[in-house]
Amino acid sequence: MNFCSHCGFKDMEFIIPDGDSLPRYVCPNCKTIHYINPKIIVGSIPIWEDKILLCKRAIEPRYGKWTLPCGYMENGETVEQGAIRETEEEANARIEVIGIQSIYSIPHINQVYMVFHSKLLDLNFSAGEESLEVGLFREEDIPWKELAFSAVHFSLKHFFQDRKQGQIQSTRIGFFQMSDRKHNH
Amino acid sequence: MNFCSHCGFKDMEFIIPDGDSLPRYVCPNCKTIHYINPKIIVGSIPIWEDKILLCKRAIEPRYGKWTLPCGYMENGETVEQGAIRETEEEANARIEVIGIQSIYSIPHINQVYMVFHSKLLDLNFSAGEESLEVGLFREEDIPWKELAFSAVHFSLKHFFQDRKQGQIQSTRIGFFQMSDRKHNH
Repeated sequence: MNFCSHCGFKDMEFIIPDGDSLPRYVCPNCKTIHYINPKIIVGSIPIWEDKILLCKRAIEPRYGKWTLPCGYMENGETVEQGAIRETEEEANARIEVIGIQSIYSIPHINQVYMVFHSKLLDLNFSAGEESLEVGLFREEDIPWKELAFSAVHFSLKHFFQDRKQGQIQSTRIGFFQMSDRKHNH
Repeated sequence: MNFCSHCGFKDMEFIIPDGDSLPRYVCPNCKTIHYINPKIIVGSIPIWEDKILLCKRAIEPRYGKWTLPCGYMENGETVEQGAIRETEEEANARIEVIGIQSIYSIPHINQVYMVFHSKLLDLNFSAGEESLEVGLFREEDIPWKELAFSAVHFSLKHFFQDRKQGQIQSTRIGFFQMSDRKHNH
């Protein structure tokens, strides 16, 4: 942050405000404290019979890699609405949210993934603007080595583990670890 | 947003960027797109035997009202670390996170609460700087009409419902509705 977005002052300070415990960007001119917090990425596992829907990314990062439909949650929506919107945008697919499947923190890039179990409502899906192609995959056909993000790997790994044990409604919580580094997060 | 925080330009535009579907603050000078997204509030239900820990707020908003220990998630931490930190800061209490208890969206103020079941590890708690007092409450002693936030009401209501049915590990998902308006969220 180079300039105060409130008053335009250019010599911002990065200091711990009174009563706070962490440094923030503080404007010495108008005194505004600028808080910067983690962002939420909402997504879904769209389920159709024994298959799930994946999207091949048409944008960077991870162009050409496979992902669950997901993206930044927007202001003015609930987490479920965000997951439904992203699934519509990336796969032109309609889902019904069943429950929360996984919560996955990536502290070093300040992201939290929230992925929802969902029921794919029909087969009229197709690649959205951000996807090269969209398809349904059985467990044995998941392109594990071509997944875009560690959060997608985390989510799918636990989804299939839990499904084997009949625990489709359980919620898994995780976070990025160095062993996930191959996914570059 | 009055000024570009990147270059200091003062005539920011609020337009839909190419390939996007929502308006954003865009700087006509340096072309930076400024995304503004929902913030996460992490909190815990610290459980001790048949009681849970609540904090009486020493700060606005809702000065003097009761809350679960919770606050804004910070960059560089996981959701569970955030819940543990907030419980330490507000109640000087140490917890072990058990699982996610509720996810509660408040779209009109762009917040998402994530509240965790947790085990209170000892009784050496006390009011932190942001609390007037801290105490353990049985279900029948919960000050339902003096709760600070609709998210706290949502979380506690479902916690006790689920406990009665032996489902302490279930995750509830909700969002602010007009009937929650008495909590001013």
